[in-house]
Amino acid sequence: MISLTPETMEARALYHLLTSICAPRPIAWVSTMNAAGVPNLAPFSFYNAVAGFPPTIMFSVSYRQQAEPRVKDTLRNVHEVGEFVSHVVNEELAEAMMLTSADWPPGTNEFEIAGLQAVPSVDVRPPRIALAPVAMECQVTQIVPVQGSTNVMVLGRVLRFHVREDLLRPNGLVDTIKMEPISRMGGPVEYARIGELFHLQIPDVESLSKT
Amino acid sequence: MISLTPETMEARALYHLLTSICAPRPIAWVSTMNAAGVPNLAPFSFYNAVAGFPPTIMFSVSYRQQAEPRVKDTLRNVHEVGEFVSHVVNEELAEAMMLTSADWPPGTNEFEIAGLQAVPSVDVRPPRIALAPVAMECQVTQIVPVQGSTNVMVLGRVLRFHVREDLLRPNGLVDTIKMEPISRMGGPVEYARIGELFHLQIPDVESLSKT
Repeated sequence: MISLTPETMEARALYHLLTSICAPRPIAWVSTMNAAGVPNLAPFSFYNAVAGFPPTIMFSVSYRQQAEPRVKDTLRNVHEVGEFVSHVVNEELAEAMMLTSADWPPGTNEFEIAGLQAVPSVDVRPPRIALAPVAMECQVTQIVPVQGSTNVMVLGRVLRFHVREDLLRPNGLVDTIKMEPISRMGGPVEYARIGELFHLQIPDVESLSKT
Repeated sequence: MISLTPETMEARALYHLLTSICAPRPIAWVSTMNAAGVPNLAPFSFYNAVAGFPPTIMFSVSYRQQAEPRVKDTLRNVHEVGEFVSHVVNEELAEAMMLTSADWPPGTNEFEIAGLQAVPSVDVRPPRIALAPVAMECQVTQIVPVQGSTNVMVLGRVLRFHVREDLLRPNGLVDTIKMEPISRMGGPVEYARIGELFHLQIPDVESLSKT
């Protein structure tokens, strides 16, 4: 094993090492709105569910390293309007997502930039992306700075799920393979498709204890 | 689109819906130790990086729903000994991981249960799994309950990375494909391999603005 410590590494190299290890990362494509009603779209891969009940998801927003203002629209917006919509990105939407990931000036409407049709949400003010296979309307419940960093975790409770009809399985799950989500790997440009599915059973402790 | 609201759903169905949407999820296989020095191993898929600098990762621990005590060993241990080691699970270790995911009585040493060789860590007290392709020694920096839920987020700063020699690429990234991490999908038993890798470039805003 090779042993590496953060102190000896340059910030960018460290970031790339970490993201090539914490992988594959699901992507939250997040729609927000500022107090004036201007929508914003941006993708985040420091993202996951953090509670099943009530259904709660988290994404972590970093400050902009090179451009002013340092605070990204998404973070300012969730402070102004405590709501967001998180979308799944499939392969069909990958190029549009990349357009919304660029460093646009504050107040840019990325729906227009990427030519994405916006649909009004039911329970929150930010609109959702019409073509996204799944959208989750969320109410912001916590905004938690990551100690010592320029990242802030935004937590949101899912108020409503929108699922493309053909993706809902009879058992109530979404067909994740059919949803074709893309996931983030290491480095600035690496993404991956999902590979083969397989099943692993949680062993039954009582039967194991007897063997 | 089908629209679903949490109020109308049973807790387990809701959990499965959420986890089939937030996918693929990377897995943190977490080693902790209690004050008496007994190690513990358990996997978590509500996990991701939350900051690049300093390198910080988060995993969310739920309370046990059916067994007493409600608090899992991992959460009690990070309160008692504020350190952990997070490992990547590859296909070779999948079965051993499943053994450590079962609901063993408090104080069980899952290294022994799963027949995994433990190696002393350098900067933290909990040992690491000898065979894991990557291990990250972490210091707990924040323990944050998820509002209204029985989940608690544990944040840790990476003090040291251990990477299997053949996985480190010349550019400083880990070869994620070669690492063969397994990821969690929806439902209690679904896992996936990583599929094809592809590259997407972040567009250059200045050149786009001119077109």
